[in-house]
Amino acid sequence: MRQLLQEIRQNPMLWLLAFVPGVFIAERLEPDAHTLLFVLSVLAIVPLAALLSHATQSVAAKTGDAVGGLLNATLGNLTELVIALTALRAGQYMLVKASIAGAIVTNTLFMLGASFLLGGLKHHVQEFNAAAARFQAVQLFLATVALLVPSAVGAGDSPGIASFTQTVSLSLAILLIATYGLGLLFSLRTHREFFGSAGHGEAEDVPWPIGLAVATLAAVTVLVALISEVFVASVQEAALAFGMSQAFVGFIVVALVGGAAEMASAFSGARKDRLDLSIGIALGSAVQIALFVAPVLVLASYAIGPTPMSLQFWPGAVVMVLIATLTACLVSTGGRATWFSGVLVLAVYQVFAITLYLLPPIAP
Amino acid sequence: MRQLLQEIRQNPMLWLLAFVPGVFIAERLEPDAHTLLFVLSVLAIVPLAALLSHATQSVAAKTGDAVGGLLNATLGNLTELVIALTALRAGQYMLVKASIAGAIVTNTLFMLGASFLLGGLKHHVQEFNAAAARFQAVQLFLATVALLVPSAVGAGDSPGIASFTQTVSLSLAILLIATYGLGLLFSLRTHREFFGSAGHGEAEDVPWPIGLAVATLAAVTVLVALISEVFVASVQEAALAFGMSQAFVGFIVVALVGGAAEMASAFSGARKDRLDLSIGIALGSAVQIALFVAPVLVLASYAIGPTPMSLQFWPGAVVMVLIATLTACLVSTGGRATWFSGVLVLAVYQVFAITLYLLPPIAP
Amino acid sequence: MRQLLQEIRQNPMLWLLAFVPGVFIAERLEPDAHTLLFVLSVLAIVPLAALLSHATQSVAAKTGDAVGGLLNATLGNLTELVIALTALRAGQYMLVKASIAGAIVTNTLFMLGASFLLGGLKHHVQEFNAAAARFQAVQLFLATVALLVPSAVGAGDSPGIASFTQTVSLSLAILLIATYGLGLLFSLRTHREFFGSAGHGEAEDVPWPIGLAVATLAAVTVLVALISEVFVASVQEAALAFGMSQAFVGFIVVALVGGAAEMASAFSGARKDRLDLSIGIALGSAVQIALFVAPVLVLASYAIGPTPMSLQFWPGAVVMVLIATLTACLVSTGGRATWFSGVLVLAVYQVFAITLYLLPPIAP
Repeated sequence: MRQLLQEIRQNPMLWLLAFVPGVFIAERLEPDAHTLLFVLSVLAIVPLAALLSHATQSVAAKTGDAVGGLLNATLGNLTELVIALTALRAGQYMLVKASIAGAIVTNTLFMLGASFLLGGLKHHVQEFNAAAARFQAVQLFLATVALLVPSAVGAGDSPGIASFTQTVSLSLAILLIATYGLGLLFSLRTHREFFGSAGHGEAEDVPWPIGLAVATLAAVTVLVALISEVFVASVQEAALAFGMSQAFVGFIVVALVGGAAEMASAFSGARKDRLDLSIGIALGSAVQIALFVAPVLVLASYAIGPTPMSLQFWPGAVVMVLIATLTACLVSTGGRATWFSGVLVLAVYQVFAITLYLLPPIAP
Repeated sequence: MRQLLQEIRQNPMLWLLAFVPGVFIAERLEPDAHTLLFVLSVLAIVPLAALLSHATQSVAAKTGDAVGGLLNATLGNLTELVIALTALRAGQYMLVKASIAGAIVTNTLFMLGASFLLGGLKHHVQEFNAAAARFQAVQLFLATVALLVPSAVGAGDSPGIASFTQTVSLSLAILLIATYGLGLLFSLRTHREFFGSAGHGEAEDVPWPIGLAVATLAAVTVLVALISEVFVASVQEAALAFGMSQAFVGFIVVALVGGAAEMASAFSGARKDRLDLSIGIALGSAVQIALFVAPVLVLASYAIGPTPMSLQFWPGAVVMVLIATLTACLVSTGGRATWFSGVLVLAVYQVFAITLYLLPPIAP
Repeated sequence: MRQLLQEIRQNPMLWLLAFVPGVFIAERLEPDAHTLLFVLSVLAIVPLAALLSHATQSVAAKTGDAVGGLLNATLGNLTELVIALTALRAGQYMLVKASIAGAIVTNTLFMLGASFLLGGLKHHVQEFNAAAARFQAVQLFLATVALLVPSAVGAGDSPGIASFTQTVSLSLAILLIATYGLGLLFSLRTHREFFGSAGHGEAEDVPWPIGLAVATLAAVTVLVALISEVFVASVQEAALAFGMSQAFVGFIVVALVGGAAEMASAFSGARKDRLDLSIGIALGSAVQIALFVAPVLVLASYAIGPTPMSLQFWPGAVVMVLIATLTACLVSTGGRATWFSGVLVLAVYQVFAITLYLLPPIAP
């Protein structure tokens, strides 16, 4: 416990934990102050995501390589998953889908671009292992393509398209999860040496004792779930108040909030001239969203959603995800980056953000 | 002849030749048993395609490099061409177009992915010549793009679009064949050394005497043509019986059947750690479909089809071909492959197959 | 002045200057001979563009590296800019947009493809600096993507889409120009060494004295502006007379005319086995169109156009620009080229040209 408090003292991001009780108090006192609740819940989720990330790594460090790797890989996007599950239960499928697509876009454009920019402002030219980056980028491309194909192919309006889309989404979810399982086999068992450099970056944080780590993991997950409820309930009204479209909230806000902890790691890696680490976090996290989080949400919608959720994205989201993935492939395979590479990647992200912010409401 | 029989004894795929007379007998006795005829004709075409492939290579080996290369390049997809010509004469343009797009997708995703997987299960990491693969991949990208542009650009509904599409398709067919001719000049005359490694793989099969090879070539082509008639006549009803959409039959079934012989070569190359050979076969065959088979079918439609055939593909096919080609570019330029690369490429293929299988009927 | 005359004597392209007075005489005598005026103005703009290019480089050479680089970068596409501004003032937005998209496509496909072909006919295989080319190609990809995203995302027909498109276009124009400014900072200040090889190619032309250069720059810009008026006024009728669609004129004719001077440099570089120079000119010019010319035109439309112009392109243009950019990325990152690479890239360009030539009229 003392260790946890010490950690909090040293890491300014964790000071935001003060907002966690703030959310619950505000919800009790002002249940209709949607804008306030929205802002508070966003501020509260960021430090919880950081704690969750550290706890996961601590558990992983104690449980041996194979199980630890599995935990790391499965719980790496736990925050995004919990938020999306809450939105799913509330039947806000537009928000769920936007957050899936947005997490891929944000990881590949914002996290990668800002890493290039922050690293490039400190180092003239940064070299990175192009072969490893290419391998991950290709994996990302194939994962997102597999996720998006039904949207692109079944976009017609022929009769029976709805049940078609649902059946395809279900089959696809199973296929994606199976591929994800094989990917774990690949990265944890048959080809572990490929992923050496990414793992050794995490080792810098001192792992917590296992008891503290497991307790933190459990408690913080519950907290994230509770705050996600406030977040999901307030996001609609708050978006209206801020003049933001729902697409913007899901794509940009949820993705930035959910990924804050990973971004902190990626940016710190880039500043230390370890771009391989940054690229690994950004692309690895995006792959996990496509191959694991998205299909889990489809399957979960049968159990906890009002109706089954499909993997049919609106065309604009498909275009953005494809462009983001292709951008990641192109920039991450060159083997060197400068601050201007970052500016260009961030420009594409800003174009997306501006477009989504101004977008008139669209049916899901 | 003895040589032919010996070949048949050694190659289990050729035992399927027993189905060739079966097709003709069944057609005489049960002309309306469409499902039976469909299955029999599929089983009969596979070994004939293998014989055709071996005969072409034998003739090529005897006639000197330039003519031989020309033959190999022109007759490499003879099975696909004969099947498509039969469907063309029957006016089944939807099937013809699906088989063109499907052959490109199957070669670039299934053949390449399964080669990576089969090779990777035996070898930890397989290295290949990235420069040569990149050259072929870029050629493939440009060939398929040239084939697809009119579909993407002229997809509107303005008046006069039909005659526009037909004129574009005809001009394009001529341009593609001219490009193909220049490509032969390039690979057989001015830059033969680029294609050294791919060719030297074929040399392992003992070539037949020229008489046997030419006779086999002629006789088997006739047999394929006859069985294609049965196949094309039965495919519609059989598809209904199996619950398959026509798009699935053209995209997946025809492409797998027509390419069975090349796949056998590509897979055997991958098992022997000669991925360059596998990649060369897969991408080379796809290039040939785009630059040669497709325009020949457009031109042939003026002579033997009920009406001229255009190169307008349905949007889903355009998306699939573009994604398949881009995938081939990305995975074949990295210079190394593992079993999981194969899993990912095959996952994209399975996504296509599942989507097409479940697709409700679409107008051509 | 003697130097200018000597230059004209040596450079056959400049003999076309004889058509400059021809345009004004013909316009006075035969104001309704649109086809004649169109042909004359095309022939007159080509040598003026060459003079403009040489004058810009001469001024740049005299004013020191930083200012010179800025001038070169800003005035490199001055001809295209002047023509587009004239069309803008006449309210011909379809022509303006077609010329933006067309300049990108023509630079990346025609200029690059013809460089490969012309260079490859003289040299068996041409090697080029793949890392530098990849850097420029990625920059081009991101620049064009940023330009095109609103077209792809906002293509729906929901109410309020028009004002949305206009707001997005304006925000985007500012973002693109800011990115362009950062790019100048990058290439002229922080990472000048990256762009060494491209610059040292220009040094072969003897620079003019500064007085002559500035006077030429001013006078020729005025002439281009005057002739552009004739060109823009006659292009509609002439296109009808030649049976060309307006899209074809903007995409192909304007782009070829405006880029003639740069093409001459790029092709001459390729013949001298300096493909790095050719690639730098082609991709650099395309980047400038996307990041500078296009947003300047949007901003200018508020001042001089009848109504504000958006950056909404028709879907066919979006597809063509994306394919052209992707093609540039793929072919320019391999590090080697042959004549057949050029044939393939030119085939894609011809496909575009044929499709546009035959295209039935489309609403802007």
